[in-house]
Amino acid sequence: MASCIIAYLGPMGSYTYEAAQAFAKDAQISDAIFEPCASITTVFSQENQKEKLPRYMIIPLENSTSGDVYETYKLLYLHAFRVIALKRLEIAHVLIGLVGSSCSKIKTVYSHPQALMQVTDYTKKRQLATIPYFSTADAVGFISKQKDLTIGAIASTAATNYYPNTLVLDDAISNNEHNYTRFLVLRAAADTSESAFFFEKSQQEAQLFLLFELEHDASGQLSDILTILFTFGINMTSIKSRPIEGQIFEYFFVVEALMTKLLSEQQQYEIFLQLQEKTARVIYNVY
Amino acid sequence: MASCIIAYLGPMGSYTYEAAQAFAKDAQISDAIFEPCASITTVFSQENQKEKLPRYMIIPLENSTSGDVYETYKLLYLHAFRVIALKRLEIAHVLIGLVGSSCSKIKTVYSHPQALMQVTDYTKKRQLATIPYFSTADAVGFISKQKDLTIGAIASTAATNYYPNTLVLDDAISNNEHNYTRFLVLRAAADTSESAFFFEKSQQEAQLFLLFELEHDASGQLSDILTILFTFGINMTSIKSRPIEGQIFEYFFVVEALMTKLLSEQQQYEIFLQLQEKTARVIYNVY
Repeated sequence: MASCIIAYLGPMGSYTYEAAQAFAKDAQISDAIFEPCASITTVFSQENQKEKLPRYMIIPLENSTSGDVYETYKLLYLHAFRVIALKRLEIAHVLIGLVGSSCSKIKTVYSHPQALMQVTDYTKKRQLATIPYFSTADAVGFISKQKDLTIGAIASTAATNYYPNTLVLDDAISNNEHNYTRFLVLRAAADTSESAFFFEKSQQEAQLFLLFELEHDASGQLSDILTILFTFGINMTSIKSRPIEGQIFEYFFVVEALMTKLLSEQQQYEIFLQLQEKTARVIYNVY
Repeated sequence: MASCIIAYLGPMGSYTYEAAQAFAKDAQISDAIFEPCASITTVFSQENQKEKLPRYMIIPLENSTSGDVYETYKLLYLHAFRVIALKRLEIAHVLIGLVGSSCSKIKTVYSHPQALMQVTDYTKKRQLATIPYFSTADAVGFISKQKDLTIGAIASTAATNYYPNTLVLDDAISNNEHNYTRFLVLRAAADTSESAFFFEKSQQEAQLFLLFELEHDASGQLSDILTILFTFGINMTSIKSRPIEGQIFEYFFVVEALMTKLLSEQQQYEIFLQLQEKTARVIYNVY
């Protein structure tokens, strides 16, 4: 029997699937059931879980070119979760074609519009027609079912592993070399309405993931909260506010930080208590 | 001769074009040259400007479903700009077909994947095949050139004005009624490397758009900056950090706020000076 389920934004061969595999490798999980989900909402949903196995959820958080995945932020606010890890993946697009094709035979490429936008230098130089498709992996799935040696897909190298008869014809074709996506690895937690303290490790270089909701005047309270973090030598690397749906001028915040000082679990619990005093709800998650 | 140029993320009939028209109407500009641009970078570029006319730039900043437009944030950091206005537009998708077609004849719809994702309830109920296209307006342009009464496009009502032979067949078809995009109206300013103070009005309900860059330790300095705003009764409505490209652990911040107190130009200049002391660069823009 498998040791756990790893649910991810699918299909197989998607970049999120790559992140899921990288997580499994790092965590030395060799017998997971990988569960592809058609949407981020489905990844969060526990409904289809027949087996009573631990279930990890892997979703994209942010892409360095195209930005925040707002659906992820929205669902983080609505669900109880615990951050297990954050995977950063280089998004390296390649040209994929059918076995028997070659770079020079390809005249038309299929891919997600975002991926097509990230390879415009290449497609212009080679005068390739571009046709938008629902996802990079689906585009590989589509061409693998055609018998046409003149069509290709823009996707990740890994996608060729899951669609028969496909191979990489050209690589390193992105306009910008520094294109990456950050993926969250989560576990479901108990109760969304409660503050929560999750503590994994106290080493230096531990990461802090903080989600909190203010009660009234956001501006003053927020600076209080950042002062608490600063006082304990916690170095913020990202902050984002999002309006709470249906509540005018109420916001929640997601802060990511690096622990630059060695803090004990007790010290960190003290920070959590101080933050809890200033917020309507706070999830303090060290991983 | 026209009084100004209004450059926008095109083509004609795009949602940004709608925002551009709303801006022209509010600003009582009736004789503008509307300049469609293929990308946000092109909107920012001044290269093609032959006529020596004032030039407004209109670009999307944020969508309530799909999130920040990172390209906009990136270009704001790299360019000198002044915020003139911020337009919030309801994104209300409709079904568009050819003259002579009807709702029940349509079997396949074309649109931007994001728009298709926002009308899935409708397309599932009517069992419509969905084909992704580069933009909503381009999809209308595409179907207008076909002679096929069974194909339609998902776009805005306004798009029908710019593509012959098209009309709205059904409206209010979005899954979520509360889908909106915020668009920035900008003017180019002089020098990107300098701090800048732009002051338009001191009434209550004036908006503040703040972009700043910290020099060293982001965490402590950021809380100082928020404390300055709080002290002057400035109510933050949004905060976002973005890493500065090529500089590890350096960030810039975009803060939006509402003026809840009546502040004079002199008081606001005082705030600007205090912020300038704490930052490597700050753009303080009241509009």
